[in-house]
Amino acid sequence: MKLFSSVHDVPDIKQFVNDALALKANPYAHQSLGKNKTLGLVFMNPSLRTRLSTQKAALNLGMNVMVMNMDKEGWALETQDGVVMNGTTVEHIREAAAVMGMYCDILGLRSFPKLHNREEDYSEDFFNKFVKYCAVPVVSLESATRHPLQSFADLITIHETWTNKGTKPKVVLAWAPHVKALPQAVPNSFAEWMCKAQQDGMIDFTIAQPEGYELAEDFTPGAKIEYDLEEALAGADYVYVKNWSSYKEYGKVLTYPDGWMMNNEKLKITNKAKVMHCLPVRRDLELSSEILDGPNSLVIHEAGNRLWAAQTVLKAMLEKL
Amino acid sequence: MKLFSSVHDVPDIKQFVNDALALKANPYAHQSLGKNKTLGLVFMNPSLRTRLSTQKAALNLGMNVMVMNMDKEGWALETQDGVVMNGTTVEHIREAAAVMGMYCDILGLRSFPKLHNREEDYSEDFFNKFVKYCAVPVVSLESATRHPLQSFADLITIHETWTNKGTKPKVVLAWAPHVKALPQAVPNSFAEWMCKAQQDGMIDFTIAQPEGYELAEDFTPGAKIEYDLEEALAGADYVYVKNWSSYKEYGKVLTYPDGWMMNNEKLKITNKAKVMHCLPVRRDLELSSEILDGPNSLVIHEAGNRLWAAQTVLKAMLEKL
Amino acid sequence: MKLFSSVHDVPDIKQFVNDALALKANPYAHQSLGKNKTLGLVFMNPSLRTRLSTQKAALNLGMNVMVMNMDKEGWALETQDGVVMNGTTVEHIREAAAVMGMYCDILGLRSFPKLHNREEDYSEDFFNKFVKYCAVPVVSLESATRHPLQSFADLITIHETWTNKGTKPKVVLAWAPHVKALPQAVPNSFAEWMCKAQQDGMIDFTIAQPEGYELAEDFTPGAKIEYDLEEALAGADYVYVKNWSSYKEYGKVLTYPDGWMMNNEKLKITNKAKVMHCLPVRRDLELSSEILDGPNSLVIHEAGNRLWAAQTVLKAMLEKL
Repeated sequence: MKLFSSVHDVPDIKQFVNDALALKANPYAHQSLGKNKTLGLVFMNPSLRTRLSTQKAALNLGMNVMVMNMDKEGWALETQDGVVMNGTTVEHIREAAAVMGMYCDILGLRSFPKLHNREEDYSEDFFNKFVKYCAVPVVSLESATRHPLQSFADLITIHETWTNKGTKPKVVLAWAPHVKALPQAVPNSFAEWMCKAQQDGMIDFTIAQPEGYELAEDFTPGAKIEYDLEEALAGADYVYVKNWSSYKEYGKVLTYPDGWMMNNEKLKITNKAKVMHCLPVRRDLELSSEILDGPNSLVIHEAGNRLWAAQTVLKAMLEKL
Repeated sequence: MKLFSSVHDVPDIKQFVNDALALKANPYAHQSLGKNKTLGLVFMNPSLRTRLSTQKAALNLGMNVMVMNMDKEGWALETQDGVVMNGTTVEHIREAAAVMGMYCDILGLRSFPKLHNREEDYSEDFFNKFVKYCAVPVVSLESATRHPLQSFADLITIHETWTNKGTKPKVVLAWAPHVKALPQAVPNSFAEWMCKAQQDGMIDFTIAQPEGYELAEDFTPGAKIEYDLEEALAGADYVYVKNWSSYKEYGKVLTYPDGWMMNNEKLKITNKAKVMHCLPVRRDLELSSEILDGPNSLVIHEAGNRLWAAQTVLKAMLEKL
Repeated sequence: MKLFSSVHDVPDIKQFVNDALALKANPYAHQSLGKNKTLGLVFMNPSLRTRLSTQKAALNLGMNVMVMNMDKEGWALETQDGVVMNGTTVEHIREAAAVMGMYCDILGLRSFPKLHNREEDYSEDFFNKFVKYCAVPVVSLESATRHPLQSFADLITIHETWTNKGTKPKVVLAWAPHVKALPQAVPNSFAEWMCKAQQDGMIDFTIAQPEGYELAEDFTPGAKIEYDLEEALAGADYVYVKNWSSYKEYGKVLTYPDGWMMNNEKLKITNKAKVMHCLPVRRDLELSSEILDGPNSLVIHEAGNRLWAAQTVLKAMLEKL
């Protein structure tokens, strides 16, 4: 594996989930793979789970890890070509990425969208240029439009906790309120992975959101789209709660009808659904405390699986170095 | 050991000091204990000595270390239950602590008091919630009311440098001036450890401070309290210089009579006392340069012992994992 | 080696270059040297290449590395003696350096000049005090007036790429425009190393700059000084492009005639020169994109050699611990 930026980089997601569970059962079995190999983790934005889980994954594999908070320890990068660099950007991504590639065997990159210009964000210009110029394998630690390590961990979690084997769980991605305009990266990515899992006969997948909050269609092939949350929740086995800003009216927080916060009352409509969230979660705004502190929550378990998702990806990359 | 937050977590402080000195004599003897174990160091506030000494201690034991400056690399945490999180806090400590516990075998946490509300600070709400929700052993890297790794290093230093075995040194904690309102964590903790050492027959302990600067009585059982610095210093073998803000008029800098800065003139009253300070120290405000640069200063030696204090605690925790 | 702050700390630069190339050919051959040894990297200013290459170099040698961004994770340091510390500086460099020396076997320090006071900057007061008080070997990661790891990497790069052995390449340091007032550290250091290489018969060395931008003479013994860029470039084999602020009118950006940006047109005057730059580079202000993206650029290769420069220095220090 040379690139992990979306579900399309994974030849067989079922096999990938099984690889992850094998690593979870035996975390330190592959330390010779990572010996004298260095992972560089480059952050243009803050991170808690992604940084710690990916760092730990690399350590489990015997790698060295160097963390670079480029937004704090470094300086502003230029991405446009053909500009005279007489402004505030200090270094061009062409040089910065190439140089980091000289010191690292694998690089991870986090870079959020600005949410000002849809075309710019959805072109993944920054991420793609970094990949192009660094010349080593790259793991996305969340880019403008996707968060694939999160979605892979989510799929691992669903597969691992679904005991009714032989049947397919109903998985619902449910929009939830928030006070800030958030990227679509997590829901895009979750939708993309779940649509692939649906194609592969692993799950049934429904997305529920208010009018105006529809995700870009490229990410939702085959998903059932609902505008009525209660209808979507009926019979659900997994509810993935997440806020996102509008794709259509790009980056905007639109008005929406009451009743989109997930709580125990709504849980009754489901098939005793397990509730997931990528975290960080705004308690009692996106998701009620009673659910988060109750037996149906998978949020911590799911965060724990970030480690095995990252370790699976890094192992696949180390094997191809 | 599952928790190291105060002297009360240590069954036998004399034995603990001896353990530390054994590690100092043989730092790398226990590297198999830490193999594939990860220490997470979580900072809500800046750190120099604590971060580097604890990181080094873990490396000496063969552990991996991940440092998370939550105030800079992460985001603001909510600690209150039952609030709708529609403000500036991004994640609740319930989730943040639980998630960090998924990636680390032991966690260290630094979290200063706000000095606005005595009850809130002295409840150690933040620290205690972190301990409760992270589900792994926790080392205090300084909390609202205590700095136990510092106090343990101080006790090691006194024990190590006291050559007149068979007698008990007179140890004096001496308040000193400062320009800022500082927490009581270091003096509380030092008092707590010294009172225990006094109980165990290791030292005699006196605290000297101006009126209004008395520490909370819970931390000073058995200590001799003086309001006259010169009287306190008479015959002292160790003088521990430190500023703190008022506990009574909580967090305030009160007026005080002249003469509380420690200097060579005052040293003459003592029994050629060794002078200690936890650092950072404001030169010629808390403590004179002539002392810091002279033969009576133990401040660097004492900072060096932070390493062995941390290594002793981590070793005790690793043995119980 | 106890100190690496300038070319004067290297007994034989030719041998040092050969040592670096031997490490490049065999990076992991000396890991027993670094076992249980800790490198502390202390940054008072941002860093990308220096931090990552030095960290990687230490890891290659089997060392542990602790990174301390003192400007962000720590606090302001006092350097003056004899001042009452009742202002904004929290800790004196005497204590801070001494304490870091207690936890590290080797320290690296980056500290930029303020460009306000020439005498203060050129006294290297901060760097020298750190070296004096920390009591362990110190590697300069760029100080007020020098950046020796960069210059050593530059010399490695020239030696490595000069195929016409038996002859001496003509090396030109060419001033270039910028929008900010930059330190003289990189050009001072490059000049110092190239003047030594010229003395040792390895190269011929010319410096070209507009009137008023002359470097301090201490750094340029034997260099040919030119004020006409085209004259300097005639027959050049290597052109090292770099901006710096005035030494004479200290820290000022002076007016200068047009035509000092390096581009393909000017390259034609040279002997198909290779073009170098320490990075970060302002594209199309200091140096044209056509050069940076073309076959004559050595900038990434040169950045890659930072690793071997650092590893050579650390290895020489480890051998003398």
